[in-house]
Amino acid sequence: MKIAGAHCRSVWLEPDGWSVGIFDQRHLPWAVERMTLRTPDEAAHAIADMATRGAPLIGAVAAYGLALALRHDASNEGLDRAVSLLAEARPTAVNLRWALQRVRAAVAPLAPDARTAAAYAEAAAICDEDVAMNRAIGDAGLPLLQAIAERKRGEPVQVMTHCNAGWLATVDWGTATAPLYLAHDRGLPLHVWVDETRPRNQGALTAFELDAHGVPHSMIADNAGGLLMQRGEVDMVIVGTDRVTANGDVCNKIGTYLKALAARAHGIPFYVALPSSTYDPATPTGADVPIEERSADEVRLVSGPDESGTLRRIAVTRSAARNPAFDITPAELVTGYVTEAGLLVGATALAAGLGG
Amino acid sequence: MKIAGAHCRSVWLEPDGWSVGIFDQRHLPWAVERMTLRTPDEAAHAIADMATRGAPLIGAVAAYGLALALRHDASNEGLDRAVSLLAEARPTAVNLRWALQRVRAAVAPLAPDARTAAAYAEAAAICDEDVAMNRAIGDAGLPLLQAIAERKRGEPVQVMTHCNAGWLATVDWGTATAPLYLAHDRGLPLHVWVDETRPRNQGALTAFELDAHGVPHSMIADNAGGLLMQRGEVDMVIVGTDRVTANGDVCNKIGTYLKALAARAHGIPFYVALPSSTYDPATPTGADVPIEERSADEVRLVSGPDESGTLRRIAVTRSAARNPAFDITPAELVTGYVTEAGLLVGATALAAGLGG
Repeated sequence: MKIAGAHCRSVWLEPDGWSVGIFDQRHLPWAVERMTLRTPDEAAHAIADMATRGAPLIGAVAAYGLALALRHDASNEGLDRAVSLLAEARPTAVNLRWALQRVRAAVAPLAPDARTAAAYAEAAAICDEDVAMNRAIGDAGLPLLQAIAERKRGEPVQVMTHCNAGWLATVDWGTATAPLYLAHDRGLPLHVWVDETRPRNQGALTAFELDAHGVPHSMIADNAGGLLMQRGEVDMVIVGTDRVTANGDVCNKIGTYLKALAARAHGIPFYVALPSSTYDPATPTGADVPIEERSADEVRLVSGPDESGTLRRIAVTRSAARNPAFDITPAELVTGYVTEAGLLVGATALAAGLGG
Repeated sequence: MKIAGAHCRSVWLEPDGWSVGIFDQRHLPWAVERMTLRTPDEAAHAIADMATRGAPLIGAVAAYGLALALRHDASNEGLDRAVSLLAEARPTAVNLRWALQRVRAAVAPLAPDARTAAAYAEAAAICDEDVAMNRAIGDAGLPLLQAIAERKRGEPVQVMTHCNAGWLATVDWGTATAPLYLAHDRGLPLHVWVDETRPRNQGALTAFELDAHGVPHSMIADNAGGLLMQRGEVDMVIVGTDRVTANGDVCNKIGTYLKALAARAHGIPFYVALPSSTYDPATPTGADVPIEERSADEVRLVSGPDESGTLRRIAVTRSAARNPAFDITPAELVTGYVTEAGLLVGATALAAGLGG
């Protein structure tokens, strides 16, 4: 997607043909700072310190990190050491290990002097496939927006989203945002309600993305969605997901479920953008998904720049706090899953379409 | 209620018998600072600058402000001037004007030299009546908590609340919090889920109150309520209200409606603490209530102390933002209204019980 009119991906090969560029996302949305990774250690640090984030993106960065390692040591031992180093950067990230195993499988059968080029090629393929998958999600979601636009005869389509399922968390397009960028680029009038998404305020990243690409949007408190739906100011909701279980239940950022309930109460369609990599048919229902409880300090403390631009961390309360990070939206509240295999409605269609 | 074991009201007469004490609520929840009002100008400033806040409380403070004015000029002109000065401190506050008119009506028929004492007596009566009304709401709500406690056999009753309908916004007890304080003081095991209530974070005031009085509680992001209800971790919801219309619709802080929808989805009782002064039978339904849209900066900026205790204001986003301040919870989602006339269920009972 675009920043200040220039097309960007969230990871790229630098002009030297071997070093790897990323955005330092720790400074977003306040400053757009690029950084260059030249060693596997730099790649591992960038992942561990969350300079780069988002499940699909850290897989891609790790794949390039392996290529950087092989430039200096393409032996079997060097390969193993680099895989371990990078895998440990975010111990629970599934995509990270998946990407590393994929590159390892591609290069291990080769002679050491052929491995580096093959690793770069595999990393590039991982990136291109992620882009293609998200683009396909965009194609599947576009007709939903077009149908609403036609009904509204030129009035902007009002879309609500929660958290950041945007291009900054993937290589490009994002998942929930892919149909929005595609629609905007085609000239469809659009306005996005961006939930702030407390406690970590990932909505600020979504707002940054939309702003940089030029898509009209407004940030709102997570509390505001019910009123906006009551007033008829929301035409559809689309969110990303961390996991969809066999029965179609959706595990996503805390607060998603409240919006799904409100959408149902007002007859507003509620869509989930779902790449096949996030579909988990081995888990029967949402009740089987463990919910991560994160630090209470994420509720108590907020960071951002003060009037002079200095980044500060302030307290919003000193009380005891609890911080469950995800909730489960039951399948019956989901109008449809927007996937690279098209719009899928219901658990049976999901299994057929995404190969469950 | 109590702070550090000592009983407090939110407005009081100082030991000199004439000056008026309040908490400077601009420093809450970070610091407990008391201030003394000695002139009507000081009272008007305290109201205008929100050193004192909450509809019932500013009425009481204004009433005392009128008494302070009459000490120096008890003429008809002095009375009129002071009423105007104090009424203009918060131009849209209904309780403020109601309290001023009540004191004026009580003192105007009297000879000037009898007016000051009568004004102090009327202000004290306004305070005592507010306390009695909230205490009666507590009595009406207590059996609801006791019934749940009995069912749970010693497990804490889990109550969720939104915004601050606490004693800091009234003279004592609060509205939604009155049953909670009463139950806690009677030894009933209790834990309160306190919604943060973005964008203005009034949940931090509720958490401060509960903490100061010793009631177990946890602050949560507004997003967390759906998950907690899914998990069976909420036994009842009780909120305050800014206005209840003839048909029983509830206008309250933005986000209330989302919790009411979730409570209904999980069969959790949803109660509204309603003093008769907030019942508005002249307005037919919630659709007739204008919704205040406040500054987008309330969404964009957050204030609080940094690590060193210095109060800072930081940005959470620089994007466009929208900030509707209230939403409407339809009457059909309300299990009952907890009023000074007891628990009332349905619009007909409301009209009969609160004299509509």
